[in-house]
Amino acid sequence: MNPSLPLPLGFRAHVTNVGVKDTTDDFTVVAADAVCSAAGVFTRSSFAGPSVLVSRRHVADGRARAMVVVSKNANVATGPQGLADAEELAAGVAAALGCDASDVLVASTGVIGRAYPMDRIRAGLRAIPSPLPGTDAGAVARGIMTTDTVPKTASAAAGAARVVGVAKGVGMIEPDMATMIAMLFTDALVEAADLDAMFRRVVDRTFNCVSVDTDTSTSDTAVVLASGAAGQVDAAALEAALYDVCASLTRQIARDGEGATKLLEVAVDGAADARQAKHVAKAIVNSPLVKTAVHGADPNWGRVAMAVGKSTTADAVDQAKVVIRFGRQEVYPAAVDDAGLDALAAYMRGDEVRIHVSLGTGGTGAATVWGCDLSDGYVRINADYTT
Amino acid sequence: MNPSLPLPLGFRAHVTNVGVKDTTDDFTVVAADAVCSAAGVFTRSSFAGPSVLVSRRHVADGRARAMVVVSKNANVATGPQGLADAEELAAGVAAALGCDASDVLVASTGVIGRAYPMDRIRAGLRAIPSPLPGTDAGAVARGIMTTDTVPKTASAAAGAARVVGVAKGVGMIEPDMATMIAMLFTDALVEAADLDAMFRRVVDRTFNCVSVDTDTSTSDTAVVLASGAAGQVDAAALEAALYDVCASLTRQIARDGEGATKLLEVAVDGAADARQAKHVAKAIVNSPLVKTAVHGADPNWGRVAMAVGKSTTADAVDQAKVVIRFGRQEVYPAAVDDAGLDALAAYMRGDEVRIHVSLGTGGTGAATVWGCDLSDGYVRINADYTT
Repeated sequence: MNPSLPLPLGFRAHVTNVGVKDTTDDFTVVAADAVCSAAGVFTRSSFAGPSVLVSRRHVADGRARAMVVVSKNANVATGPQGLADAEELAAGVAAALGCDASDVLVASTGVIGRAYPMDRIRAGLRAIPSPLPGTDAGAVARGIMTTDTVPKTASAAAGAARVVGVAKGVGMIEPDMATMIAMLFTDALVEAADLDAMFRRVVDRTFNCVSVDTDTSTSDTAVVLASGAAGQVDAAALEAALYDVCASLTRQIARDGEGATKLLEVAVDGAADARQAKHVAKAIVNSPLVKTAVHGADPNWGRVAMAVGKSTTADAVDQAKVVIRFGRQEVYPAAVDDAGLDALAAYMRGDEVRIHVSLGTGGTGAATVWGCDLSDGYVRINADYTT
Repeated sequence: MNPSLPLPLGFRAHVTNVGVKDTTDDFTVVAADAVCSAAGVFTRSSFAGPSVLVSRRHVADGRARAMVVVSKNANVATGPQGLADAEELAAGVAAALGCDASDVLVASTGVIGRAYPMDRIRAGLRAIPSPLPGTDAGAVARGIMTTDTVPKTASAAAGAARVVGVAKGVGMIEPDMATMIAMLFTDALVEAADLDAMFRRVVDRTFNCVSVDTDTSTSDTAVVLASGAAGQVDAAALEAALYDVCASLTRQIARDGEGATKLLEVAVDGAADARQAKHVAKAIVNSPLVKTAVHGADPNWGRVAMAVGKSTTADAVDQAKVVIRFGRQEVYPAAVDDAGLDALAAYMRGDEVRIHVSLGTGGTGAATVWGCDLSDGYVRINADYTT
């Protein structure tokens, strides 16, 4: 086996099926050779699942050895039994690796409100091979999928070190503190506190800027483990590599949104500050009327104006100073002639649409966010999905 | 002509086609016999149209004589010319009625970003008959429709007086201060300040509690005119009648939401305060995952838990104390047996679904909001709608 995207030095993986729901891979363990620096960002949902509670506790000291992901069952809203099951999962992985349970992080994704089939999970825990057999990041990405149509991986270099990331998620996506499930691995040597700070900055500009459907998951988890096997590298280079990987995964998530046929990128500048820019950009990317217009390849800038309007007051934004562009074509306030409309319609039929709004407040606040169009496919997927 | 729902005493109407877009009625004037008490609530959008700007100014003194509504063109994002056109519209109606332009309110609904066909509007203004010929509230409701599938009217009594309301709106509906276009008329005699205060309280519990698609219109306008022709009535009875009319129109709007097949009512109680209750209720009624589950008649309470989770933090809401019901059936934390599931599925297939969440905070905050399911029809209507 010759993995096309190997994990960074110092990491090994085990991906298998234990029968959580069907016969596809549903049980994934990625472990460093030894306990190493780690950071995590999690959902702020009041219905956060036991996996989030356990991982938040276990990563609090900035150290971890491994992460285990169960897919096809979210283990959310499962009461005290669900919490006990998540703790048993961490302890079982720790026993197989010979480490402390508090050094194992847990994530889980799938249906809400059903208990794990613990007999099958326990059999899976007993069968974890030693050492872990794999190094293929692609297999890890496939192992954590639920309704994703494609596995999501990305990598970047930082000096002699590498950063490799995998993610899953197509619906219930508007991360608040983190997103869906994303795991990043690097062989860079970095202090836990530095890793945590740079990871939070990166997540805020990437995963926290994606929305498929405004719905925030109860299981949002993004973690990074740094084995240190490649030695110390320039901190700025490492943060840039983390950003590149997270930004790539973010765009992959948006593009694979449930029923999506297009990637939608919305950039807002000329805002009073970054917070206002992101607020307006999110209002545009989340507007079902903008999303359906993009789906219909309709350059309906009136709906963009509506979204700017609903997310700001006239005290803050003067509609006479706003400029709206689809791609590079200004559509408001300048009117588009017939030739321009034809070019615009052709642009809108592409598989990536960019909306650019300058608010003209005199400030320099800017933000870019990502989403997707809203299609009949989204409705069918979610109206027919069975609890 | 024997109108099934006549306007209250002291009001007359003129509904016609002037050719704004097609041959359906698009030009509606309702006038009191004399200047009378009036109140209005409008969108807070920074892209509010000239109609909103003009009406807000004209109703500021609590007095008005008439309202003119142009449908099929919103006159929004039309620059200085759009504002001049709205002022000319008010002045033209005033000239026909023999009153001051500042006593005429204006509303407009339809496509955004296109100038009025002023030659046709001017011809319509010149042709306003004197006196206004009609008294049929149903004709008024039909005259202001755009893509509504049914006209929306409601009435209630307050002592010897009547309250009659009409409304339009099926998409771009999550009112912030008011909603779409709603006009209420009463023959009660009431001071403008009292009318304004009671109307704002009523709007906050009705139109401000409906959302079809989270998108706030640039043209939201709700006004009430009180002719006084029926004399003074009990204030509480008048407010109750205003509430009954607005609540009925609100439910009609939700039920006629674009592509909607079901009315969705979400009630939240046990919240720390009314604000938290409304925030959580809105998160549920606006969740595309909840809306698609309702469309698919799927009692997917996990998505309701998700929406509660994303709109509250664990500090504020303890998931162990939350109770979720579909109709009267508890679905969380109590599990539903197979017979219960069958009954629940039958309930979900009805044309009205109620979700009830008790947050268990120890507080008594409560709110009820209305919306609709999300269907393929919504996507088709809005992906195919041409700018």
